[in-house]
Amino acid sequence: MKYLIIRRSRYLAVFVVLLLSSFASAELLVVKQKFETTNFKTFNGETIKQVAVGWESYGQLNNKKDNVILITHFFTGNSHAAGKYSPEDKQAGYWDALIGPDKAIDTNKYYVISVDSLANLGVRDPNVITTGPASINPDTGKPYGLSFPVVTIRDFVNIQKAVLESLGIKKLHAVVGASMGSMQAIDWAATYPYWVPRMISVVGSGQADAWVTSALERWSIPIRLDSNWQQGNYYQGPAPIAGLTAALMFITQDALSPEFFNSIGQSENMSFSPLEVAPLKDINQSHSIVLWLKSRAAARAELMDANHLLYLVRANQLFMAGHGNDLNSGLKNIRAKTLFLPAEKDLLLMPYLAYNAHQTLLSFGKNSQIGTISGIRGHLEGVVGIAKKADQIAAFLADEKIKDKK
Amino acid sequence: MKYLIIRRSRYLAVFVVLLLSSFASAELLVVKQKFETTNFKTFNGETIKQVAVGWESYGQLNNKKDNVILITHFFTGNSHAAGKYSPEDKQAGYWDALIGPDKAIDTNKYYVISVDSLANLGVRDPNVITTGPASINPDTGKPYGLSFPVVTIRDFVNIQKAVLESLGIKKLHAVVGASMGSMQAIDWAATYPYWVPRMISVVGSGQADAWVTSALERWSIPIRLDSNWQQGNYYQGPAPIAGLTAALMFITQDALSPEFFNSIGQSENMSFSPLEVAPLKDINQSHSIVLWLKSRAAARAELMDANHLLYLVRANQLFMAGHGNDLNSGLKNIRAKTLFLPAEKDLLLMPYLAYNAHQTLLSFGKNSQIGTISGIRGHLEGVVGIAKKADQIAAFLADEKIKDKK
Repeated sequence: MKYLIIRRSRYLAVFVVLLLSSFASAELLVVKQKFETTNFKTFNGETIKQVAVGWESYGQLNNKKDNVILITHFFTGNSHAAGKYSPEDKQAGYWDALIGPDKAIDTNKYYVISVDSLANLGVRDPNVITTGPASINPDTGKPYGLSFPVVTIRDFVNIQKAVLESLGIKKLHAVVGASMGSMQAIDWAATYPYWVPRMISVVGSGQADAWVTSALERWSIPIRLDSNWQQGNYYQGPAPIAGLTAALMFITQDALSPEFFNSIGQSENMSFSPLEVAPLKDINQSHSIVLWLKSRAAARAELMDANHLLYLVRANQLFMAGHGNDLNSGLKNIRAKTLFLPAEKDLLLMPYLAYNAHQTLLSFGKNSQIGTISGIRGHLEGVVGIAKKADQIAAFLADEKIKDKK
Repeated sequence: MKYLIIRRSRYLAVFVVLLLSSFASAELLVVKQKFETTNFKTFNGETIKQVAVGWESYGQLNNKKDNVILITHFFTGNSHAAGKYSPEDKQAGYWDALIGPDKAIDTNKYYVISVDSLANLGVRDPNVITTGPASINPDTGKPYGLSFPVVTIRDFVNIQKAVLESLGIKKLHAVVGASMGSMQAIDWAATYPYWVPRMISVVGSGQADAWVTSALERWSIPIRLDSNWQQGNYYQGPAPIAGLTAALMFITQDALSPEFFNSIGQSENMSFSPLEVAPLKDINQSHSIVLWLKSRAAARAELMDANHLLYLVRANQLFMAGHGNDLNSGLKNIRAKTLFLPAEKDLLLMPYLAYNAHQTLLSFGKNSQIGTISGIRGHLEGVVGIAKKADQIAAFLADEKIKDKK
């Protein structure tokens, strides 16, 4: 097993991997890489003169270049889907339970690749490379702010395609993504059907319907209300941290369920009670559970950018599989066999969304399967509960027959 | 049938009723009345020197004063539960399908009464009388703002009790409320068990759990982010309308369900599509469904007050049946037979909340029933779908035996 992963200095990376190789026998070590392109045409007809995005890969590309699995990431995520940047890393990539040597997405067999989105939320994370409203507009030498073009899920897909083509890849073995990543996966299958023989949608949807569009708007509203936001021109002054923190509070709760949330309220570190004294006495004080949610959100906000959040919300709101007039015309193009894995208690992208896409595909005579991820963590099960579906995913990727599990 | 309802001028009201009596044979005509008290002690130990609240009644108080049904209202509502202020009124009170002559809550039989809450949201509605942060503090001659004490569901109950006692009433036939009104109804039964032989909780909860508390916090956040809010001292300047409008957008969606919401998106006046041109081209434009939600919210905001919304959120967050240390101790006190009517697709106060309270009561050997309101309008079914449970409610109030319906 060798993971020769290169960023800026190929030699440094090789040196690091060699140095660590004795520790890394079971550990997937990874380095963020960078892809650049110019004059990228967006789906809405605009041009981004300079684009740079990060990407990661796990496993080795074979000679035929036909062992590629593309992983498309979720809203608050990036291309760090598996592995660690160093053996000391406390946290591995988000789907490390799924991706790695001898795991369901077996890096002894597949070359697994993932790409940071445009307008990636974690723009201040040193392990994210992205282009978005916080990037410098080469025409002005200043951050784009809201002059950055509206980007879509299709644009994320097209950047991924450019990364793959730069590696000489012309077809995928599969595309697999959760949540916003599922939208990209479905758009891949609908838009480039000859690239995609297998598609797995985890906690996903074939389109943003009216409900989802309005629900996502909630994440934008607090940012736009923050007086520091300044119509997106805050890069010389204080950032709209209060609005961004509020948005992240909403995102966190939306991705969970009452059962899980209430178990947090009753955990050792916090004994939530409706009649806590501070909020009873003072309208400006908050309940312990609200403070918990806020402190987590504030910590996450430090690496994120508020404008990027607005652009990601918009990309999701604009999503329709195939980016055509309706869902049917997008899904009709799909040639992949598909697997949908909604989460039982998902309140953000509720299971009906996956069922709608799945049933529509069946009605067109397509090969589609569906299974449900159980568990009390709602939408988040698509990330933290993925191991429960490892066998089904492995069998699906291997073209073995496996019964639908619910 | 005579509805002699008095506000300020008893004579004017009598005159109006007489004048309209020829039109009013099937119509319940009602006038908002006013109750005032002084030095009201709040649950958290503070004092409100002058309190005025509005109230309405339907039907006639009998000589024994034992035919009283108290209706407790929901978050965005007021005491206008039934009837019209004039025959020309386009809209009757919110539960007019339930309350009236020969209806499930039969005003030929019962004296039905309802009281505007403290810090009522509709403070600028000419048919609402309330005392809250927008009221003048007699000590300063200026609006209270955030110096108004935090008030609780218990305080609403205690004001209602004072209104009832002012009429010589010492016991209820029943208390019935939806949503926030359900919290008041349960608190009545837990706190004044000898007053309450029958309690009906519609789309309700026995307490605000961690999930509900955080979900409600979302309604406050946009108001606090609005730069016009000024820590609640906005009564001399522009009101935080943008924040209040955002809160009302959240409330509207929270009270509905995807199925209903998506049917709006596909209605004649609006053909929602993810790829609408305006939001695709411009990050500052919105989808039609968002504009619809916003325009409705903005219209409602005109009669409402942002600080009042913060205080109502807090009253709900602080709710525990009986306002004691835990749910069990509150529910143990209940002597009423109880009926819980959660709504099938409620995403705001989900059915598990009603089931928890109901099951706990059963575990204490109490007489409790439960039924589910079907329909696609989510939480809102507790208001607009109440007629579906009219028979069950009528039988429950009449002590007839009726099977639980789901």
